[in-house]
Amino acid sequence: MATKYETLAQSFAALIEQGTLRAGDRLPSVRDVVATRGLSPSTVFEAYYLLEARGLVSARPRSGYFVNARPERREEPQAMHPTAGQQAVAINDVVMAVLGTVRDRRVVPLGSAFPDPALFPLERLARGMGTAMRRLDPSQLLENLAPGNPDLRHQIALRGLAQGVPSSVDEIVITSGAMEALSLSLQAVTRPGDVVAIESPAFYGCLQVLERLRLRAVEVATHPRLGVQLDSLEQVLQHHPVKACWFMPTFQNPLGALMPVDKKQALVALLARHRVPLIEDDVYAELYFGAQRPPPAKAFDREGWVMHCGSFSKSLAPGYRVGWVSAGRFAREVERLKLMGTLAVAVPSQLAVLHFLKHGAYDRHLRRLRDALAARQERALRAIAQHLPAGTRVTRPEGGYFVWVELPEGVDAMALHHAALARHISLAPGHLFSADRRFTRHIRLNVGHPRPEQSDAAIKALGRLVSALPGQHIPFTAAKGART
Amino acid sequence: MATKYETLAQSFAALIEQGTLRAGDRLPSVRDVVATRGLSPSTVFEAYYLLEARGLVSARPRSGYFVNARPERREEPQAMHPTAGQQAVAINDVVMAVLGTVRDRRVVPLGSAFPDPALFPLERLARGMGTAMRRLDPSQLLENLAPGNPDLRHQIALRGLAQGVPSSVDEIVITSGAMEALSLSLQAVTRPGDVVAIESPAFYGCLQVLERLRLRAVEVATHPRLGVQLDSLEQVLQHHPVKACWFMPTFQNPLGALMPVDKKQALVALLARHRVPLIEDDVYAELYFGAQRPPPAKAFDREGWVMHCGSFSKSLAPGYRVGWVSAGRFAREVERLKLMGTLAVAVPSQLAVLHFLKHGAYDRHLRRLRDALAARQERALRAIAQHLPAGTRVTRPEGGYFVWVELPEGVDAMALHHAALARHISLAPGHLFSADRRFTRHIRLNVGHPRPEQSDAAIKALGRLVSALPGQHIPFTAAKGART
Repeated sequence: MATKYETLAQSFAALIEQGTLRAGDRLPSVRDVVATRGLSPSTVFEAYYLLEARGLVSARPRSGYFVNARPERREEPQAMHPTAGQQAVAINDVVMAVLGTVRDRRVVPLGSAFPDPALFPLERLARGMGTAMRRLDPSQLLENLAPGNPDLRHQIALRGLAQGVPSSVDEIVITSGAMEALSLSLQAVTRPGDVVAIESPAFYGCLQVLERLRLRAVEVATHPRLGVQLDSLEQVLQHHPVKACWFMPTFQNPLGALMPVDKKQALVALLARHRVPLIEDDVYAELYFGAQRPPPAKAFDREGWVMHCGSFSKSLAPGYRVGWVSAGRFAREVERLKLMGTLAVAVPSQLAVLHFLKHGAYDRHLRRLRDALAARQERALRAIAQHLPAGTRVTRPEGGYFVWVELPEGVDAMALHHAALARHISLAPGHLFSADRRFTRHIRLNVGHPRPEQSDAAIKALGRLVSALPGQHIPFTAAKGART
Repeated sequence: MATKYETLAQSFAALIEQGTLRAGDRLPSVRDVVATRGLSPSTVFEAYYLLEARGLVSARPRSGYFVNARPERREEPQAMHPTAGQQAVAINDVVMAVLGTVRDRRVVPLGSAFPDPALFPLERLARGMGTAMRRLDPSQLLENLAPGNPDLRHQIALRGLAQGVPSSVDEIVITSGAMEALSLSLQAVTRPGDVVAIESPAFYGCLQVLERLRLRAVEVATHPRLGVQLDSLEQVLQHHPVKACWFMPTFQNPLGALMPVDKKQALVALLARHRVPLIEDDVYAELYFGAQRPPPAKAFDREGWVMHCGSFSKSLAPGYRVGWVSAGRFAREVERLKLMGTLAVAVPSQLAVLHFLKHGAYDRHLRRLRDALAARQERALRAIAQHLPAGTRVTRPEGGYFVWVELPEGVDAMALHHAALARHISLAPGHLFSADRRFTRHIRLNVGHPRPEQSDAAIKALGRLVSALPGQHIPFTAAKGART
């Protein structure tokens, strides 16, 4: 549920987005808003602080709050229309080669998939975990075997209910992060050789799991802002024996696309009609910048076809490896696979997350985290508009910490990756995000990392590299049509 | 390395085992031993305390130490000769049904696979983990991704070296317990449909993983005390396209068999000759009752064919889910699979174990643990000899916490399981331990559980149930030929 001040901030943000409020405009005084909307002064102040944290307005001493210059804008990338065939997946060597670079601390981690750990309450988590583990009656260890700690599953079910997700405690299996949740879900509903529908572009982790399980991929067209295109999906379902869909309807990785609520609802209905399970990767949903959490597709699941996979790794506890799946009609099969595979999730991790959910003001932490990520995205988009050459397009997701950049014609993202790495900058080339390495002039950038000056400089360096790549003679010009 | 007092204790234990020292005999006085062996009095006292802790001798005030009456003995079970065929594995439903019962706290857990958690330093582990996690620089989180925390891998390599295992740090991958280590090892060297050689009887977890990965099993004959029979293995290698062996050369589950050192060496040589990887499940080795840790087969691996899988779950940290594999020539493939599967082991768990290895007197903890388990086994064997009917045979493992019981002809272990469960006693019927459910009159008992009176009573109850089973009219008689 959005609070009053979040709702108020969102209404001003919408006015700024529309252009009703423009750069340099003064927001109404707190006194005026109190008078006209019947809110308390502290609510209005909270809303204005939030807008400021998100980089939309600035306070000027003794004058009030003024709308900031909008960052220069790039157009959004074009829609993605994959080829129609099924294909085996062999992506892993590329992914390993590229991602091995993010561990080097000298490298500016624009290519990283991980959130900035400095944004997380790691010390409080550790203290809570220590307390919970010292109090543990050893005989309780067995209670944490798959499907997982009953109280933790209860907490997850409660949070789900508040977000419109009708998960029962019995349906939830705790996993070693979302990766295990997704992988077990896939194993529960496929056999080697089966066909799985994925997004185009798709999260490379999905491609790796398909490769590992010897599954075949068929890619579905996406819109860079609105996600999976249902007409494309319908085509795919008609022409291929699809055994499962693996989609990220909320803040898709790498696009950041957010399927609108009515499309999510239609997606669930379509798949139920075809009796095809939806494996829903929902790990970024808590990182929304808007006033309210976008509901997952699972919220519209009436028949148990949606296997909803979540994690605390991006929102609370990186490195603790606590995820879950609410697997609908496949819940018992997932539990069996979990028991056969890794038996249980580490008890300290389960109890650390449980302790924080019960005593740790999780929602307050999440608000701070979202504000920080929104402000960082704003700043990075500004740097991209300023430093990357004309013809560059970029997404502007409403949550998470990735943007997806389409570089001008002729740029090879893999060549850029190598050139950037030589300058200690990592990025994720588009080659990682499809079975046929089709996105050769796209890159995914992690804009959630801690040192903004460093990120700005790295983006500036990327701009120079793009222009200097062999065969590239793209004159540097600032984006046309940017609103200022 | 065995200490002086352990070596001394072992020499007396051997004399008792041979019958040179008999029930009621007095051990030489401390003064005499000091004089004849050139040891310090405290060394001799430590040795005598150890023998006492293991139930072999008792102190009588102002008289010295006297050899205890040996428990009544049962013969060891017969050797196991499997049928020769390959077979698909479908064991999982049986295992789930039986093992679901061990979570019920009202049940006496003779069927449990887990060690008694009360024997572990859970509070110290939790404190050390809290310290390590609070001190963690968040940017270090990435260092704990697969292959795992570098310091922890270093500690594991050092312990290995001290035990004659030539693992390099680079070869070690940290896993979510040994189950993941074993499963990843198997995935690294097989494809669905391949044939894997396993022991007969085999650990049901192994059968479950084979089933999950759609592998075929061929079973190798074992001796209940000496483990895998190499002539049987040689036959199997000649007649089947074996892609891997999954064996437990040290304290095999369920038998408790310990392959002698020269047989381990011959096993490694045989498999290297056939270029067949050995997946060595070595999770019980630290629980030896003798003076020295039996070396794993990996100690004799010169060509990298042995994938040595270990865990801290049985020896230090149940529920933390920290295991490892030292995978020889397959190490990089295992690391890739780990990254694709669950990405990393929970950081708190890795750091907890690391902290204990560096600051926690692990070896002292292990000595106490081994003494406790040895004494419990001794007591349970006594109860078995006393209460189970004539014709019962039982193993007497030199480590771990399982014994394998062969019941008299005609007894059905599954019927016994159901009857026992109705009386709140669990056991693991032999049906779980082979692909064709061949061990129908065998049971595995966990003799490491905490309340010995309760265990004794449960074993007594089992004795009554065996005699009372439908179709059973076995008169109760104490074992013949028991040494007293």
